[in-house]
Amino acid sequence: MSLAEFSLIERIRTRTHARADVLLGIGDDAALLQPRAGEQLVVTADTLNSGVHFPAETAPYDIGWKTLAVNLSDLASMGARPAWCTLALSLPDAQTDWIDAFADGFFALADEHGIVLVGGDTTRGPLSLSVTAMGQLVPGTALRRDAARVDDEVWVSGTLGDAAIALRAWQGGTLDVRGVADDAQVDYLRLRLARPTPRVALGRALVGVAHAAVDVSDGLLADLGHICERSGVGARIDPKRLPVSAAARARVGITQAREAALRGGDDYELCFTAAPSQRPAIEALSARLSLPLTRIGTIIPGSGIAHGSDDDAPRGYEHFNEL
Amino acid sequence: MSLAEFSLIERIRTRTHARADVLLGIGDDAALLQPRAGEQLVVTADTLNSGVHFPAETAPYDIGWKTLAVNLSDLASMGARPAWCTLALSLPDAQTDWIDAFADGFFALADEHGIVLVGGDTTRGPLSLSVTAMGQLVPGTALRRDAARVDDEVWVSGTLGDAAIALRAWQGGTLDVRGVADDAQVDYLRLRLARPTPRVALGRALVGVAHAAVDVSDGLLADLGHICERSGVGARIDPKRLPVSAAARARVGITQAREAALRGGDDYELCFTAAPSQRPAIEALSARLSLPLTRIGTIIPGSGIAHGSDDDAPRGYEHFNEL
Repeated sequence: MSLAEFSLIERIRTRTHARADVLLGIGDDAALLQPRAGEQLVVTADTLNSGVHFPAETAPYDIGWKTLAVNLSDLASMGARPAWCTLALSLPDAQTDWIDAFADGFFALADEHGIVLVGGDTTRGPLSLSVTAMGQLVPGTALRRDAARVDDEVWVSGTLGDAAIALRAWQGGTLDVRGVADDAQVDYLRLRLARPTPRVALGRALVGVAHAAVDVSDGLLADLGHICERSGVGARIDPKRLPVSAAARARVGITQAREAALRGGDDYELCFTAAPSQRPAIEALSARLSLPLTRIGTIIPGSGIAHGSDDDAPRGYEHFNEL
Repeated sequence: MSLAEFSLIERIRTRTHARADVLLGIGDDAALLQPRAGEQLVVTADTLNSGVHFPAETAPYDIGWKTLAVNLSDLASMGARPAWCTLALSLPDAQTDWIDAFADGFFALADEHGIVLVGGDTTRGPLSLSVTAMGQLVPGTALRRDAARVDDEVWVSGTLGDAAIALRAWQGGTLDVRGVADDAQVDYLRLRLARPTPRVALGRALVGVAHAAVDVSDGLLADLGHICERSGVGARIDPKRLPVSAAARARVGITQAREAALRGGDDYELCFTAAPSQRPAIEALSARLSLPLTRIGTIIPGSGIAHGSDDDAPRGYEHFNEL
C-alpha cells in the first residue's frame, strides 16, 4: 500500500458513518458485521467503467452517486433493506479534489439509505468503480425474477426512456453532462442519466404485494425478458401505456419517447408483476410514495414479449438472446 | 448487457458449485444467502490490476488463483470461515480460452476452501479483478489488528521474502512467470509469487490461541506495523530468526533473503501475536498443519518496530507512515 493509496482510503474512511451492526469497519484486514438474527443476506455487485458506463467527462459527484445507485437499485428490486457495501476504486491519479467530490456524491446517497461502506481499496489505473452491496430481508420475502405468474399485471415505476434520451443528446453534443442546464427539461433528463434514483422504498413496500421484480437497467424489453425467461412465461405490453416524461416527449416526440421507454436502459426504475387483486394496494402505494406506478401489460403463457400497439396484431416478439 | 458479457457470465456461472446456504446464486438482480444463526459476517475486498499487482504476462490460471487467494488471506487473518464471494472482472477482450484458464485457477482455490461465487459482472476494459469475499465466525472470536498485548510473542507462518525475490528476478529477466522452470528452486519461488497459499486453516486454528493477526501482503514491517499502530504497542523482532526458504537463500544469499523477509510483500503468510503461555499450543499446531510457525520477536511498550540484529543497539525503527 503506497502512501498515496493509504491517504485516499483515509480520506474516504473519514466520510463513513457509524452503524450499530458494524462492529469493525475499514482499517483491519476485513470488516466485522452482525447480520440481523434469522434474516437472509442479499448481495449484488456492479462495476462502472469510464467511457463505457458513463461519459468520461461526467462530474465526480455524479459518478459517486451513480456507482452506488446502480447497486442500491439491485437491492431494491429484491425488496431488501440496504446495509453495507464495499468499493473498489481504480483511479488514474490521486487527485484529492476529485476524490472529495466523488465521496460527496457517493455518501449523499449512502447516508440517505443508511448503507455503510465497510471495506474496499484504491488502485492506480483507468477510472473504474466496483461496488458490492449487501442488504437483508426476512426469509421467503425476496422479489425474485422467477416468480411471475400467468395473469399477473406488469407494472413500472416512474418514467422510462429518459436516461437513453439524455445519453443520445450527450452523444450528439446537445447535452452537457457536467453542469446544470438553463433549460429545466434538459436538466431533468441530464439528472435522470447522471443521478438515477434507486427505488429502495418501493422495493421494500412491494414485499408481499408483487410476485416478481427487476430493475430496468438494460431496457424494459431486456429486463422484463429476464423475468419471463426465469418464470417460464411470456408478457404482452401496450407501448401506449408506457410512462414517458414531459421532458422526453418535448425533446424527441411521443413515438421516439415510447421507443426509448421500450428499449433504453439506465433508468433504474422497477418493473414488477402482481396479481390483478393487488391493483388497489399498488395505487395506494403510488400515492404514499408520490411515485407514478403504471400498469403496462399482462403476463401470458408462452415466452417472449408481445409489444404491438394493436393487441390483435402484435408488432413483434423480442427474444432475450437477441438483445 | 451485451451478448458477449452475458456469455462470459454464463461461462463462469456454470463453474460454481452448490452450497446449502446459497438460496439463489448468479442469475437474479442479487444473490440470496442464509448466514449461520448468531454468527458474525466478515467482509473484505481486494483488487488486482495487470501490470501493477501482477506482471502482465502472468498465466490466466495464476491470475485467477491469486485474485481469490489475496482475499481468502484477509479472511484467514481474521480467523473466519470462507463462505461467499463476488467477482468484478474487467477484460480487454472476451477470449474464451483466457476465461476458461482464469476460471480453472479461481475455482481450484474456491473449491478447496468451499467458497462460492454468488455474483459479479464482466466489463470491457484493461485487465482488472476485484473480489469481495465474505466469511463467518462466532462473535467475539475475530483475530483483530488491535488486540496485541505487551509481552506477546510475535510469530509468522511459512517463509517470508520469497515473492519479493521472485518479483525482482522476473523484473530482472531471470525468471519466467508463465511456465514451469527447470530449476526446482526457481519454480518454487515463481509459485510463491504466482499462487500464494492463503493460510485459512491456520487462521481458524488461531482463534482462541492468538491475540492479534494480520496477513503479510505489504511486507512484514508494514503489516506488523499495522498491528502495533492499532494496538498502541511496539515490537522488537530479530531478523536472524526470520524464516527464509532454502530457495531464497540459494538465490540471493542470507543477507538479502532476510532483507526481503523484512520488507518484501506478497507472501500472504500470517503474522500473529500470542501470550508466551501459548507456545506449546502453537508448536503443536505447526506440527498438525505441517506448516512452520516461527517466533520472531516480542511486543513491547511504545511504538514502532525495533529490528536491529543486536538487541542492545537496534539498527532502526520503521514507522508505518513512511512505508
